[in-house]
Formats: sequence, structure tokens, C-alpha cells
Amino acid sequence: MGLPRQLLAEALGTALLLAVVIGSGVMAERLAGGNVALALLANTLATVGGLYVLIEVFGPVSGAHFNPAVSAVMAWRGALPAGALLPFIVAQLAGAWLGALLAHAMFDMTLLQASAKLRTGTGQWVAEAVATFGLVLVILRAPASRVAAMVAAYIGAAYWFTASTSFANPAAVFGRMFSDSFAGIAPASAPGFVVAELLGAALAVAMHRLLGGPAPASGTKATHV
Amino acid sequence: MGLPRQLLAEALGTALLLAVVIGSGVMAERLAGGNVALALLANTLATVGGLYVLIEVFGPVSGAHFNPAVSAVMAWRGALPAGALLPFIVAQLAGAWLGALLAHAMFDMTLLQASAKLRTGTGQWVAEAVATFGLVLVILRAPASRVAAMVAAYIGAAYWFTASTSFANPAAVFGRMFSDSFAGIAPASAPGFVVAELLGAALAVAMHRLLGGPAPASGTKATHV
Amino acid sequence: MGLPRQLLAEALGTALLLAVVIGSGVMAERLAGGNVALALLANTLATVGGLYVLIEVFGPVSGAHFNPAVSAVMAWRGALPAGALLPFIVAQLAGAWLGALLAHAMFDMTLLQASAKLRTGTGQWVAEAVATFGLVLVILRAPASRVAAMVAAYIGAAYWFTASTSFANPAAVFGRMFSDSFAGIAPASAPGFVVAELLGAALAVAMHRLLGGPAPASGTKATHV
Amino acid sequence: MGLPRQLLAEALGTALLLAVVIGSGVMAERLAGGNVALALLANTLATVGGLYVLIEVFGPVSGAHFNPAVSAVMAWRGALPAGALLPFIVAQLAGAWLGALLAHAMFDMTLLQASAKLRTGTGQWVAEAVATFGLVLVILRAPASRVAAMVAAYIGAAYWFTASTSFANPAAVFGRMFSDSFAGIAPASAPGFVVAELLGAALAVAMHRLLGGPAPASGTKATHV
Repeated sequence: MGLPRQLLAEALGTALLLAVVIGSGVMAERLAGGNVALALLANTLATVGGLYVLIEVFGPVSGAHFNPAVSAVMAWRGALPAGALLPFIVAQLAGAWLGALLAHAMFDMTLLQASAKLRTGTGQWVAEAVATFGLVLVILRAPASRVAAMVAAYIGAAYWFTASTSFANPAAVFGRMFSDSFAGIAPASAPGFVVAELLGAALAVAMHRLLGGPAPASGTKATHV
Repeated sequence: MGLPRQLLAEALGTALLLAVVIGSGVMAERLAGGNVALALLANTLATVGGLYVLIEVFGPVSGAHFNPAVSAVMAWRGALPAGALLPFIVAQLAGAWLGALLAHAMFDMTLLQASAKLRTGTGQWVAEAVATFGLVLVILRAPASRVAAMVAAYIGAAYWFTASTSFANPAAVFGRMFSDSFAGIAPASAPGFVVAELLGAALAVAMHRLLGGPAPASGTKATHV
Repeated sequence: MGLPRQLLAEALGTALLLAVVIGSGVMAERLAGGNVALALLANTLATVGGLYVLIEVFGPVSGAHFNPAVSAVMAWRGALPAGALLPFIVAQLAGAWLGALLAHAMFDMTLLQASAKLRTGTGQWVAEAVATFGLVLVILRAPASRVAAMVAAYIGAAYWFTASTSFANPAAVFGRMFSDSFAGIAPASAPGFVVAELLGAALAVAMHRLLGGPAPASGTKATHV
Repeated sequence: MGLPRQLLAEALGTALLLAVVIGSGVMAERLAGGNVALALLANTLATVGGLYVLIEVFGPVSGAHFNPAVSAVMAWRGALPAGALLPFIVAQLAGAWLGALLAHAMFDMTLLQASAKLRTGTGQWVAEAVATFGLVLVILRAPASRVAAMVAAYIGAAYWFTASTSFANPAAVFGRMFSDSFAGIAPASAPGFVVAELLGAALAVAMHRLLGGPAPASGTKATHV
């Protein structure tokens, strides 16, 4: 459908995804009165619903990656033209930053912020690698008609079973650096997360090969997501 | 199926939708003991379940708009006859008002009320524009077989990620003016919400065109919702 | 498949449904530390999941009514042989009673109990009529392939938007009389609930006719549920 | 697809399942501030989402049993070659143990642990028999295209309606012995749980036969899960 439309879809979709993640985190923290489990529960359910819808809506246009690690895997497998990889990543990062701003605008917060929430240590890095491993494996093996539901359900589980609440997405790390709120991450913690995510994605590609079996049905979603 | 049946479907569906939104808000607030996050969580889940079912049930009859902004978009696109627009909106507003009354009757509350809950300010208006932009974009791009699940999931997310808890519907604004409860909105705040919603809907139509791509499969739901 | 198998399915399905409703209510109340909203939330989610699965599992055998009001509607419409109505209802009531016992056995409670929880008044009766109206309308209009998900989602919403937490089922009323727990209902309150439910079911049949339109696809589920 | 790949799928899938169950339990308990209902709610939702995805992902490779009781039923019915049963069980137990370790690694906990949480008594054993009866009945009767959603929904309900929070899986018992956390079970309580589970599975096979009716559509999932 042409690269410009794909980039528009990636930027808008990633912006809305970050607005969902950050905005629902702000709302949840404001209403939860200090009960972090309740705040994360609301944050989780909003993310699951939003992610499901965004993948269904933008999947037919761009594959609905919203995630540089996913785009890199697709480029490496030949499902995304090599020349489209960098533009995809730029669109995702720009969208993520705009999404943080949009969330702040809705909640009457300072638009430009930097998170002070440190997220670091071996446990967090193992968690991010596991989270991204699972996400990429799900994307590589899901049938096209179920990929949106499966990715959303996976991320909902991963918010809780990984110690890092599963960022699993360098663009999400990028956007969340710019929000000093529930979902934020300090810039100093970002590189560790991104390295762990790329490692997890690479492991998923290897495991996908080991598991073998028929490739999922072809089609825009199957090849791009 | 004839305009009278369509109007019955729009009125009954909107009435039940408002009964779900207001009724579950009342129940949640009564039981939650002051924990607003918990109350909104219950309110959200009830709305998601109810909205999904109502769209599935009434979609084949009238398109299951329940929303003047959606009906206006459909009329503008030629998917709803121009002469049906005003009757649709009247049915939706009447239904919304009846739904508020029905909720009050079930919870042994004064039937006729006016909300005193002010919802105003730039953040709230940006939020309503974003909420309605997302809703209309989802409706315009969803495949017919998934539109109910997608709209319900979207609204569930938007209850949390938009600062306004996503009314995204002038008929919902109208009905909720008549309930001095958890889900209410003061009449003085209504115009700002409605203007923001119509703006968001118009933006969604423009974005839908920009994104291009194949139209969703035709059929009652695809053309009307 | 023969009446005996259908009766087995109705009895076992209704028993498991009541075990889910009562058992999850007991668990939720024990763990929630007095937070009724949280207890009802857990009770709701368990019921939604359990009901969805039970309808899918037993639908192909007996239609998965688990509900005398639904069986009566089906008999009245000719979708259930008139001679099967009374056996169906007996199987459902017996199953409901056994389900209460099973829940008590699992939670180390006295097996035979009677609820002391009064549920009465105009609001409660209006709520039960609305709850059953909605349930029967959903069943009559749902496409066969979605009826399980739609009924489960509807009941989940109705736990919150109806003031009675939506029994919507005379067999559920019967079984819940025998449990002095979160989900119980005092025998003295049962007749009012059942009358309201039958009224709501009759209204749904009338509304279904008014709304007209194509009948749902035929098949075991469509004709029996 | 060859036994080695099937064993890899069973080991990896069971490992991830246990990481989800144990990890989300740890996260939930840490954040819930002593509110056990809230912790179990988060634990439940994470398990439902994770289980759904794992069955969809690994079903086409190995049937996605992740459960010696399920594998035994499949072998008994001829859907799993007799010679594959023992390797399947070994892969599941090894995976379960690794999953516990993985959860501990992510949450910076001692890798090797033993649970001290006693789970014993008639109620608990009845509950485990009921839980496994329901699980196996669902698996035996679910259509292939819905088995993942049905199993996940069932387990979500069973976390609440069975007094034991529904282990329903000897491999889960095994893995959870090695975690002194929210989801743990003391080794001394394990044999009682496993015996009850096998009894429940046998009852389900008998009930499946009694209910009769058409077998679910054949295919990898239908025959193996």
C-alpha cells in the first residue's frame, strides 16, 4: 500500500499504544490510592484491550509492528524490505514520543518530562529478554487471524509474570523515558532494557527454527506482524 | 428491515447501554467503599461485556450505532440514508434518557435526576476528542465479523487511557446528564464534551481516508456501524 | 441424541454452573477481607469463564439451557419437544441442588444449608425482570457460533448493572437457596425472583418478534439454546 | 513432526506455563499489600492469558498438553503413541522445574527452593478431582478451533470455584513444589493432589463416554490436546 501509508500507520499506532500504556498508568495511579496491584491490573487490562484493537486496525496497512525489534526480525526474515526498516523504526520512535505527549496533554500534565524511575539489575534484564522472546515467538507462530488476540493476551500475562512488567519493545522504552509517571523508565535504564530485548528477539528466531513446522498462512498480517 | 424496526433497535439498544453504564457505576460505587479505581474497573468490565453483546444483538437490525456521532459519520458516507439521520438521533437520545431511568428504577433511586459532576477543562476536551477519534476509526476500519469485539475492547481501554473516561458519544453524554451518580456529567459540562466528540469523529474520517486501503467487507454491520 | 443424554447434560451442566457461582462466591468472600466490590468482581469473572465453557461443552448435547425459563421459551417456540420440558426442568433443579452441595464439599462447609440473605423489593424485582429479558433476548438473537461468548459476556455485565446481580434463572435461584454464602438467596425471596424472571422472559419473546429480521442460523445450538 | 520437536514444545511450553503461574503469583503478592483476593485475581488473569497463548502456539507441534494427566488420557485413547507417553511426562516435569527456576531468576529470588505451603484435607482433594475432571472433559469435547480459549477460560474459573485454586496438573504440582511463594505447594501435599487429579481425569473419560455425541473434528489439536 505504499511506504508512506505504512509509516503513517506505524507512527499513529505506536503513538496510540504509548498513549494507552502511559495514560492508563496515570489514571490508575491517581485512582488507586497507593494500591499498586490494583493500578497495575487496570493498566494491564487497558493495554490488552488497546493493543488488540490497534493490531487489528493497523495490521492490514503496515503489519502493526509498533516495535523496532519486531520490524528487525521481519526484515531479517525477508518479510519487510530492508530499505523499509530504518523508516519503520523512525516512525515508531517518533510515534512513541508523540504518544507520551498526548497522554500528558489529556491528563493536564507537563508535556515534556523525563522519567526518574530506575529499572535495572539482572532480574529485570532476564525478564525483558524472556518477555521479548515470548512476544516474538508468538508473532512468528500465530495464525494471521488470531495474532492480535494472541499478542494482546501474551502482553497482559507478561505484565505480571515478568519482573519488568514486560516492555518488550525498544519504542515503548523510548516513549516511556519521556514520562515521569507509573509507566516511566529512567533514560539511564533504557540501554539495558533494549539490549535484553534484542537478545530475547534473537533467541525467539532461533527457537522458532528449532520448533519447525508449517509456516503460518501467508497474507499481510502473517508476513508483516 | 424498515425504519421503525431500526429505530426500535437504536432506542432499546441505547437504553440498555446507558442502563449498563449507569447501573454498573452505581453498583460499583456502592460496593467499592471509596476505592475509585476498583469502582471504575467494575464499571469498565460491565461496559465492555454489555457493549459487545448489544452490538452483536442489534447490529443486524440497525447497525447498532447507539451514538449520534457514529450515525452522522455513516450518513455523511452514504451508509445511512440522509432522511434517517434525525430519527436515529432522536431514538438514541430518547433511549439514553430511558436507560438512565431504568438504572434508577433498579437501584431504588429517584427516577428523575440531574448530575452535579463537573467534567471540564482542556485535558478533558482533548481526551474526548481522542476517545471519539479512536472509536470512529475502529468502526470505519473493523472487519464486520469483529466490530463488536473491537469496539468493546476499545472502549474498555479508553475508560482508562483518556482522562475523561471516554464518553465518546453525545447520546451517552445526554443520558448521563440525568443521573447524579458515578457515571454522571453536569449539564453545564455537556456542550464541551459534545463539541470535542464531533471534532474527534471528523478527524477520524479524515485519517481513515489518509490510511486508505481496502474497505471492510460490505454487509449490514460493515455499512451501518 | 436421546433424552437421557440431554438430561444428563442439563443436570451436570447446571450442577457445575452452580458450583462455579457458589464456589467462587465463597472463595472471593473469604479472600476479599470485607471488600464486597472485589469479591463480586472475582465472582463475576469466574462465572463468565465458567458459563462460556459450559455452554460450549454441553450445547451440542442438550442446548445448554441450564435454566427453566430458557427451556420454557424453547418449548413455547417449538425448539424443544413439549414432553421434554418437565424432565429438563427437573434435571436442572436437581443439578442446581447438587452443585450447591459440591461447592460446600470443596470448601469444607456443611453440605445442607439454607440461605438467610433476603433479596426483595421493587428494585430487585425490576432488576430480575430486566436481567432475564436481556438474557433471553440474547439467546434468541445470537448466531449459533457466538451464543456462548455472548451469554457469558451478558451475564458478566448483568452481575453489575442489575441491582440483583442477575440471577436470571429459576434453577439458579433454587440452587442458591441451599447455600448460606455470598451467592445465596433466602427461600422467602425466591418466589418474587422467579415471577420477575418469567415476566422478563415473556417480554423478551415479544420484543424478539417486534425486532423481526432473519432467524439465526439453524443447528443444534441455534434451535436449542 | 517428530518426537524431539514435540518434546521440545512440551518442555518449553510447560516451563513458560509454570513461569507464568509462579511469576505472576510473586508479582501479585509483592504488589497486593496483603490483599489475597487481589493477588489471586491478578494471578488468575495472567494465567488465563498465558495459557491461551501457549496452547495456541504449541498446539500444532505437540498438542500442548503440558500435563501428564492429559497425556495419559490421550495415550489411553490412542491419540498419543504409547511409547511417547513417558518421554512426554519427563519433558513436562523437567519443563515445570525449569519454569520455577526461570521465575525465580526474573524476580531475583533464590533459584532452588522448596515450598512450605501445606495444601491438604478432603475439601482440597475433592476440589482437585473436580478441577481435573472439568479440565479433561473440556479438552475431550472442545472443538479444535476453540480449545485454547475454552481451556484458558475454564482454568480461570477454576482458580476461584475450586477450593484448591485448581492445579489440575501433576506437572504443575511438581514445578510448584520448588517455589516457596504464592503459588507453591509443600512436597508433603503433592501426592494427595496428584492422586485426586488422576481420579478426576478418569472420571472425565467415563463421563465423556456417557455423554456420547459426535467426536470433535480431527486434526492435530483435536487429537492431541
